[in-house]
Amino acid sequence: MQDSHGTSVPTGQNVFTADGIRAVIVGLGAMGCGIARLLLERGVEIVAAADTDPAKEGRDLGEILELGEKTGVAVGTVEEAAGAAAEIALLATSSFVREVRPEILRLVASGKNVISIAEEMAYPQAADPETAAELDAAAGDRGVTILGTGINPGFVLDTLILALTGPCTKVDAVKARRVNDLSPFGATVMATQGVGVPPEAFRQGVGEGRITGHIGFRQSVRMVADALGWKLDEIAETREPIVSTVVRETPRIRVDPGMVAGCNHTARGIVAGRAVITLEHPQQVSPHLEGVETGDYIRIEGVPQAVDMVISPEIPGGVGTTAMAVNMIPHVLAAPPGLTSMLDLPLPRAWSGDSVPDLG
Amino acid sequence: MQDSHGTSVPTGQNVFTADGIRAVIVGLGAMGCGIARLLLERGVEIVAAADTDPAKEGRDLGEILELGEKTGVAVGTVEEAAGAAAEIALLATSSFVREVRPEILRLVASGKNVISIAEEMAYPQAADPETAAELDAAAGDRGVTILGTGINPGFVLDTLILALTGPCTKVDAVKARRVNDLSPFGATVMATQGVGVPPEAFRQGVGEGRITGHIGFRQSVRMVADALGWKLDEIAETREPIVSTVVRETPRIRVDPGMVAGCNHTARGIVAGRAVITLEHPQQVSPHLEGVETGDYIRIEGVPQAVDMVISPEIPGGVGTTAMAVNMIPHVLAAPPGLTSMLDLPLPRAWSGDSVPDLG
Repeated sequence: MQDSHGTSVPTGQNVFTADGIRAVIVGLGAMGCGIARLLLERGVEIVAAADTDPAKEGRDLGEILELGEKTGVAVGTVEEAAGAAAEIALLATSSFVREVRPEILRLVASGKNVISIAEEMAYPQAADPETAAELDAAAGDRGVTILGTGINPGFVLDTLILALTGPCTKVDAVKARRVNDLSPFGATVMATQGVGVPPEAFRQGVGEGRITGHIGFRQSVRMVADALGWKLDEIAETREPIVSTVVRETPRIRVDPGMVAGCNHTARGIVAGRAVITLEHPQQVSPHLEGVETGDYIRIEGVPQAVDMVISPEIPGGVGTTAMAVNMIPHVLAAPPGLTSMLDLPLPRAWSGDSVPDLG
Repeated sequence: MQDSHGTSVPTGQNVFTADGIRAVIVGLGAMGCGIARLLLERGVEIVAAADTDPAKEGRDLGEILELGEKTGVAVGTVEEAAGAAAEIALLATSSFVREVRPEILRLVASGKNVISIAEEMAYPQAADPETAAELDAAAGDRGVTILGTGINPGFVLDTLILALTGPCTKVDAVKARRVNDLSPFGATVMATQGVGVPPEAFRQGVGEGRITGHIGFRQSVRMVADALGWKLDEIAETREPIVSTVVRETPRIRVDPGMVAGCNHTARGIVAGRAVITLEHPQQVSPHLEGVETGDYIRIEGVPQAVDMVISPEIPGGVGTTAMAVNMIPHVLAAPPGLTSMLDLPLPRAWSGDSVPDLG
């Protein structure tokens, strides 16, 4: 089947390969570097790379990625990346629609399809419907497609939930929980989740907006509600401290008993006073020390009475986000122009460009 | 976003409702009746119904469905159903492409989109690429879309597997198992799974093609392989008797120790002598009597090292197939003309046509 961009969807008859696909990568933090490495591994040519960090400016991308060899691509500005001829731009700079808006508009104006891992871009109509409409119009005019994706939002607490409603004749309620371990993460994540502080400091941090918990809940709740056709009265969020009863120690941080090990962030989509969508994302260091198993848990209630899904341990966030961004490239290239979402595209799947799996 | 048929995809801005959607139902066995009931529950108008059983001919659909009231629709022939004006035909007659081909071609010629639950139609290019091409051309010419779907093939051992590869940067192998309980099923299913016979009669039945095991494995294996871009050397299937060590008794059948409780059917997609896709579907009566829990189990190996998913108990087959057929209607109405598949359409999801869930 031919698509509007002249490429083919990967349905076997027309296996997607990276041949001739040129990418630019914008944002070379941990996620952006992961995406860049995966692009190169899959055989996608990276023709430009951008970052605002002066320490990276002008350096070879191969050096930033610690590849052990040069790529011939020097880190430059978004403006320079927009100037390069490429089919797709991967954007990994910020979590917020308002912050990525100018970058996306610039990349779209240069004729590039855009995949963003900004959490709010998974469903930008939730945080900022006006910007969503602006992006849709800009992409439509230029004949390119914009997608926001990632592990969460983008997969676990929205796409996967919805897929599991497919074999249900009736859905009364959706309940899901993603339990992860923050131990591998750095200082920024520890601070935004309130790890290591006393409970009263946690509450103050939440009040002042410094302790944010998970970014993307409103997007996931709206995606689920909209796809099921439900009109919610409100989305209610809570951020509670996970107070440790034991010593939890990681290479970066020590949490003593009575101190906060993380943030239990929940979001509920409410109709007539009842939570019809309940999403929980307790993020903490070393949950196993208190007997909590990490995992992704989804329960759809209705007919059948319940579809109860467990993925344990949870799908890792870093690898998952990297994979979703790169795996959605064929679908984005094949999509109609405009702002799209995981709701509108064919189901995500891995592609390798090789005709056989790695038989290692 | 407007689609090629003038209807809208259900992304919240444009919630799909059954208003103005007219359906015909062809095949009024257990599955067809379930689909018809769900269509009416969702507010889809059924304008014609067909079945080849003389005992059903001419009777009111409401009587066949045991609704307690008449629908004004008398059961007729496929030819009569084709003559009715409708947007969509739901087909639940046979498992095989060669058997549903004439019915689909007739319904397509009458300008109807078609959703079939024939197992082989989930990916007809696997069993019969020539007929698949013929159906694609016929639907393309008439501007309508054909989809095969169901719980399996159609969801558990293909669509859901692929979705779970989305957050993987690398896939080395896919292993999945659907363990169900045949106890609710009738005489036909017991016979095709070899329930209650001695092991030697089971082997003879497999050899003679009377004991078929699961229909749809080649379709699922090919969907997974094609979507991942893998070229398989072969697909190998085995059908082994599940010999009971205890008495297993259902309202319909008694299985004594040493007799066959069901069929353990497996399919492997092989590359260079290695099974890169392994699907197992042991179907038996009362597996819990030997400590076997029913469930849907999927394991993706690669990077991350494993995504291990469990849905236990398994998603029930009857409800699941009914739901998939009806839930895919909006996607089929919105799809480009031709033969499509679960690989090409947006992810499945439930729709109700109501703007709020049932608050019981």
